[in-house]
Amino acid sequence: MIYFDNSATTRPYKEVIDSFVKVSSEYFGNPSSLHGLGVQAEKLLTQARAQMANLLAVKPTEIYFTSGGTESNNLAIKGTALVHKNKGRHLILSSVEHPSVRGAMEQLKSADFEITYLTVDSYGRVSVEDVKASIRKDTILVSVMHVNNEVGTIQPIKEIGKLLKQYPTILFHVDGVQAIGKVPLNLVKNNVDLCSVSAHKFHGLKGTGALFIKEGVRLDPLLSGGNQEWQVRSGTENVAGTVAMAKALRMTMGKSESGLKKMERVKSVLRTELEKMDGLTINTPLEHSAPHILNFSIKGIKSEVLIHALEQKGIFLSTTSACSSKKQLPSQTLLAMGVPDELADSAFRISLSYDNTEEEARTVAGAIEDAARQLRKVMKLDEL
Amino acid sequence: MIYFDNSATTRPYKEVIDSFVKVSSEYFGNPSSLHGLGVQAEKLLTQARAQMANLLAVKPTEIYFTSGGTESNNLAIKGTALVHKNKGRHLILSSVEHPSVRGAMEQLKSADFEITYLTVDSYGRVSVEDVKASIRKDTILVSVMHVNNEVGTIQPIKEIGKLLKQYPTILFHVDGVQAIGKVPLNLVKNNVDLCSVSAHKFHGLKGTGALFIKEGVRLDPLLSGGNQEWQVRSGTENVAGTVAMAKALRMTMGKSESGLKKMERVKSVLRTELEKMDGLTINTPLEHSAPHILNFSIKGIKSEVLIHALEQKGIFLSTTSACSSKKQLPSQTLLAMGVPDELADSAFRISLSYDNTEEEARTVAGAIEDAARQLRKVMKLDEL
Repeated sequence: MIYFDNSATTRPYKEVIDSFVKVSSEYFGNPSSLHGLGVQAEKLLTQARAQMANLLAVKPTEIYFTSGGTESNNLAIKGTALVHKNKGRHLILSSVEHPSVRGAMEQLKSADFEITYLTVDSYGRVSVEDVKASIRKDTILVSVMHVNNEVGTIQPIKEIGKLLKQYPTILFHVDGVQAIGKVPLNLVKNNVDLCSVSAHKFHGLKGTGALFIKEGVRLDPLLSGGNQEWQVRSGTENVAGTVAMAKALRMTMGKSESGLKKMERVKSVLRTELEKMDGLTINTPLEHSAPHILNFSIKGIKSEVLIHALEQKGIFLSTTSACSSKKQLPSQTLLAMGVPDELADSAFRISLSYDNTEEEARTVAGAIEDAARQLRKVMKLDEL
Repeated sequence: MIYFDNSATTRPYKEVIDSFVKVSSEYFGNPSSLHGLGVQAEKLLTQARAQMANLLAVKPTEIYFTSGGTESNNLAIKGTALVHKNKGRHLILSSVEHPSVRGAMEQLKSADFEITYLTVDSYGRVSVEDVKASIRKDTILVSVMHVNNEVGTIQPIKEIGKLLKQYPTILFHVDGVQAIGKVPLNLVKNNVDLCSVSAHKFHGLKGTGALFIKEGVRLDPLLSGGNQEWQVRSGTENVAGTVAMAKALRMTMGKSESGLKKMERVKSVLRTELEKMDGLTINTPLEHSAPHILNFSIKGIKSEVLIHALEQKGIFLSTTSACSSKKQLPSQTLLAMGVPDELADSAFRISLSYDNTEEEARTVAGAIEDAARQLRKVMKLDEL
């Protein structure tokens, strides 16, 4: 099997699952319990928090555990909206955000919030000037993802962070889900107030995530209750999942030291091989793009058909983001970038992990070419 | 070790962890992915949903997966409030609800919702007459838990359900977290619209839960995004956790057939033994109480001190609910029942699983008596 769909989800590391099993079976106490089993569980939680904070170069008190990236994004956006609704109801986001950012903001429209979508250039990038021009007196939040999930474009987070330093009342949320472990970002230096993390994108387990909330930033909870996570996120903590997430992040970041260069090479092989193909357009820009995502379109080929043809050879890649793939809508990111409909309709996404190899890249490129040729032949036969 | 704190959390069954491991390692695909790995994952999710529905005697399309009991309670309450805010803003709850029900409703006050708390009798039960008297033209939701988490009282859900049949515009939410698997309830026959489930209370894994939403009932999502769970709960599904939850519920309900009688006997041994003790008051009523919870107070003994003394002997029980134990506030449920402050301050909760035995009950009762005697001696020495 060649798994090239790591932006949809990754295979959890064996060591990560082992950690989960150990904590679930041996340290199953409720961290809120007064007795020893609770204390043990709480210690593990504190340790995982310290590890995550250390890896992300922030304070442990700035790490809030959630059930995943979608919850983190919703909490960042709605939590800000709830706290600051009397100060202002204007929100800014890029037009290529993940559905959980877009959806959370769209939902707020019914509570009289207004939204400004930032357009992107042909690389899929927003411009800092546009961010500046969109700011109003009642703007309370700017949300721009670090790495786009469909094409891999890296947004100008540093520049936006620098701009927003001049607007201390506007919070800056960065959806870091696709970037964490692959594209470094200093959250503190770059003035990021909120950053979303999802464990299953870096070989952790589904159902676990985190939100970085800068010291001093206040959010109203989405989930009220027992007041866990400093009252921002109630609910019995998923201790085993959280310990597993910290381990996954440590392993991923450990691999990134030597792995990033290898990943760039794998991507480069793919790009070079695919570019040779007739009717194939690479949608991922050469510059400002993450090392693990490559998006391309093949003229005249229906994405779903090719996906299934490749699957027969044990190769797994995707049409667009996993979230949107079943709706069979063309990629919103590609349309925003100005890619014509017919190409957006026949788009594919390869997304790598540190474990993928150049050999796999060559195999996949060859298989794509073969499958596309085969499909074209069938279609021409149909036309007779 | 004698673990008598199963209402805080349970030890996950080995088979449940095994299921989690199998799914996490072998079926790690994103259920939204188009390719085979996604299809496999989605099949497992569909299967888990069907199993849960079957065990709860509802339809698969009425089971929505969440990250746990707190999320389910918040989703039920805030989701209803968001949909029906223009129809009415009055909510009714008992004064002994879990903090996640109380907290969710209290949070809605800032959005101009009004709340009526139902008082309880000395058994900790609300009265159907009070529910009826509290209903207003703008009431949109009544929330009453099935089994109280601190004393184990069973609320008159059937009677409330019958009453609310006459008010088809009012939704009926039941927090079933402490009841599922121990106290049967026919959700459909009893007119329940929404029911919360938490897996780690029945030997499943933390971070997984479900909300029953009766067919035709509409909720606005708390988490927007990729539109998983019929658009009510977005976020990549925790497939392995969900499969594990279905297994845990199946095993728990399987054990309940013969286990319930045994559990009643264990509780009865505890009650009989403890009642003999000087200065000990049982707070859990004889009637209308769940088989697994026994709450009692020992006059003059500081709960926390006794908890730690018992822990030395490998016995784990709790002072109050896990959520509230660290705040060291007296149990809200006991105060609502009219238990005097000094007794509410020295309260203990024993909560059983199907695996606890009569022998353990005798050992624990003896240990409590010994520890209390010892502590009294120390305190009297202090007074000299």
